[in-house]
Amino acid sequence: MKAEIKVELKEGVFDPEGENIKKALHLLGFSGVQNVKLAKVYTIEMDKEENVQEMCTKLLTNPVIHMYDIRKG
Amino acid sequence: MKAEIKVELKEGVFDPEGENIKKALHLLGFSGVQNVKLAKVYTIEMDKEENVQEMCTKLLTNPVIHMYDIRKG
Repeated sequence: MKAEIKVELKEGVFDPEGENIKKALHLLGFSGVQNVKLAKVYTIEMDKEENVQEMCTKLLTNPVIHMYDIRKG
Repeated sequence: MKAEIKVELKEGVFDPEGENIKKALHLLGFSGVQNVKLAKVYTIEMDKEENVQEMCTKLLTNPVIHMYDIRKG
Protein backbone atom coordinates (compact mmCIF):
# COMPACT_ATOMS: atom_id res chain seq x y z
CA MET A 1 0.00 0.00 0.00
CA LYS A 2 1.22 3.46 -0.83
CA ALA A 3 0.12 6.98 0.03
CA GLU A 4 1.40 10.26 -1.33
CA ILE A 5 0.91 13.33 0.83
CA LYS A 6 1.58 16.74 -0.66
CA VAL A 7 2.06 19.43 1.96
CA GLU A 8 2.15 23.08 0.99
CA LEU A 9 1.83 26.44 2.67
CA LYS A 10 -1.62 28.01 2.81
CA GLU A 11 -2.34 30.97 0.57
CA GLY A 12 -0.92 34.10 2.18
CA VAL A 13 1.64 32.37 4.40
CA PHE A 14 5.11 33.75 3.71
CA ASP A 15 7.42 31.24 2.02
CA PRO A 16 11.01 32.37 2.77
CA GLU A 17 12.62 29.43 0.95
CA GLY A 18 10.63 30.12 -2.21
CA GLU A 19 11.45 33.81 -1.94
CA ASN A 20 15.18 33.07 -1.71
CA ILE A 21 15.04 30.73 -4.69
CA LYS A 22 13.27 33.43 -6.69
CA LYS A 23 16.04 35.91 -5.86
CA ALA A 24 18.73 33.39 -6.75
CA LEU A 25 17.05 32.62 -10.10
CA HIS A 26 16.91 36.35 -10.86
CA LEU A 27 20.62 36.66 -10.07
CA LEU A 28 21.30 33.78 -12.45
CA GLY A 29 19.55 35.70 -15.21
CA PHE A 30 16.11 34.04 -15.18
CA SER A 31 14.39 37.42 -15.10
CA GLY A 32 11.00 36.04 -16.12
CA VAL A 33 10.48 34.25 -12.80
CA GLN A 34 7.61 35.86 -10.94
CA ASN A 35 6.98 33.52 -8.09
CA VAL A 36 8.38 30.31 -6.58
CA LYS A 37 6.39 28.09 -4.25
CA LEU A 38 7.62 25.02 -2.46
CA ALA A 39 5.81 21.90 -1.42
CA LYS A 40 6.90 18.66 0.19
CA VAL A 41 5.73 15.28 -0.94
CA TYR A 42 5.89 12.33 1.46
CA THR A 43 5.61 8.91 -0.14
CA ILE A 44 4.67 6.41 2.54
CA GLU A 45 4.80 2.67 1.95
CA MET A 46 2.75 0.53 4.31
CA ASP A 47 2.22 -3.19 4.68
CA LYS A 48 -1.23 -2.72 6.25
CA GLU A 49 -3.99 -0.11 6.21
CA GLU A 50 -3.07 2.92 8.32
CA ASN A 51 -4.89 6.18 8.97
CA VAL A 52 -2.91 8.54 6.77
CA GLN A 53 -5.13 11.49 7.70
CA GLU A 54 -4.09 10.96 11.32
CA MET A 55 -0.39 10.86 10.35
CA CYS A 56 -0.87 14.29 8.80
CA THR A 57 -2.56 15.85 11.81
CA LYS A 58 -0.26 14.21 14.36
CA LEU A 59 3.12 14.61 12.70
CA LEU A 60 3.45 15.78 9.13
CA THR A 61 1.56 19.05 8.99
CA ASN A 62 0.84 22.16 11.00
CA PRO A 63 -2.82 23.13 10.55
CA VAL A 64 -2.05 26.81 11.13
CA ILE A 65 0.16 27.16 8.06
CA HIS A 66 -0.20 24.01 5.93
CA MET A 67 -2.74 22.53 3.60
CA TYR A 68 -2.35 18.98 2.38
CA ASP A 69 -3.65 16.53 -0.09
CA ILE A 70 -3.58 12.73 0.27
CA ARG A 71 -3.43 10.42 -2.73
CA LYS A 72 -3.66 6.68 -2.22
CA GLY A 73 -2.60 4.15 -4.75
CA MET B 1 3.45 30.21 -17.64
CA LYS B 2 3.97 27.65 -14.94
CA ALA B 3 6.43 24.83 -14.37
CA GLU B 4 6.37 22.19 -11.67
CA ILE B 5 9.67 20.55 -10.81
CA LYS B 6 9.67 17.47 -8.60
CA VAL B 7 13.07 16.77 -7.08
CA GLU B 8 13.74 13.50 -5.29
CA LEU B 9 16.70 11.50 -4.14
CA LYS B 10 18.07 8.88 -6.49
CA GLU B 11 17.45 5.23 -5.70
CA GLY B 12 19.99 4.10 -3.10
CA VAL B 13 20.79 7.55 -1.70
CA PHE B 14 20.18 7.60 2.04
CA ASP B 15 17.24 9.81 3.05
CA PRO B 16 17.78 10.78 6.71
CA GLU B 17 14.65 12.95 6.91
CA GLY B 18 12.47 10.13 5.59
CA GLU B 19 14.12 7.70 7.99
CA ASN B 20 13.40 9.96 10.96
CA ILE B 21 9.78 10.40 9.92
CA LYS B 22 9.43 6.61 9.67
CA LYS B 23 10.76 6.22 13.22
CA ALA B 24 8.44 8.94 14.51
CA LEU B 25 5.43 7.30 12.83
CA HIS B 26 6.35 3.97 14.44
CA LEU B 27 6.56 5.66 17.84
CA LEU B 28 3.09 7.14 17.25
CA GLY B 29 1.77 3.62 16.68
CA PHE B 30 1.67 3.49 12.89
CA SER B 31 3.46 0.16 12.87
CA GLY B 32 2.55 -0.66 9.27
CA VAL B 33 4.82 2.02 7.85
CA GLN B 34 7.64 0.37 5.92
CA ASN B 35 9.30 3.26 4.17
CA VAL B 36 9.03 7.05 3.89
CA LYS B 37 10.50 9.00 1.01
CA LEU B 38 10.60 12.74 0.63
CA ALA B 39 10.49 14.89 -2.45
CA LYS B 40 10.36 18.62 -3.02
CA VAL B 41 8.11 20.26 -5.56
CA TYR B 42 8.99 23.71 -6.86
CA THR B 43 6.16 25.56 -8.58
CA ILE B 44 7.64 28.35 -10.68
CA GLU B 45 5.50 31.07 -12.23
CA MET B 46 7.04 32.93 -15.14
CA ASP B 47 5.90 35.81 -17.33
CA LYS B 48 8.07 34.67 -20.25
CA GLU B 49 9.61 31.44 -21.52
CA GLU B 50 12.62 30.39 -19.43
CA ASN B 51 14.89 27.38 -19.60
CA VAL B 52 13.58 25.36 -16.67
CA GLN B 53 16.04 22.54 -17.35
CA GLU B 54 18.87 25.04 -16.83
CA MET B 55 17.33 26.24 -13.53
CA CYS B 56 17.48 22.65 -12.35
CA THR B 57 21.10 22.07 -13.28
CA LYS B 58 22.29 25.50 -12.09
CA LEU B 59 20.41 25.85 -8.82
CA LEU B 60 17.67 23.46 -7.83
CA THR B 61 19.25 20.03 -8.03
CA ASN B 62 22.48 18.19 -7.36
CA PRO B 63 23.11 15.67 -10.15
CA VAL B 64 25.04 13.37 -7.83
CA ILE B 65 22.08 12.66 -5.55
CA HIS B 66 18.93 14.00 -7.19
CA MET B 67 16.66 13.05 -10.01
CA TYR B 68 14.00 15.44 -11.21
CA ASP B 69 10.96 15.69 -13.35
CA ILE B 70 9.67 18.84 -15.04
CA ARG B 71 5.99 19.37 -15.82
CA LYS B 72 4.94 22.45 -17.75
CA GLY B 73 1.42 23.77 -17.83
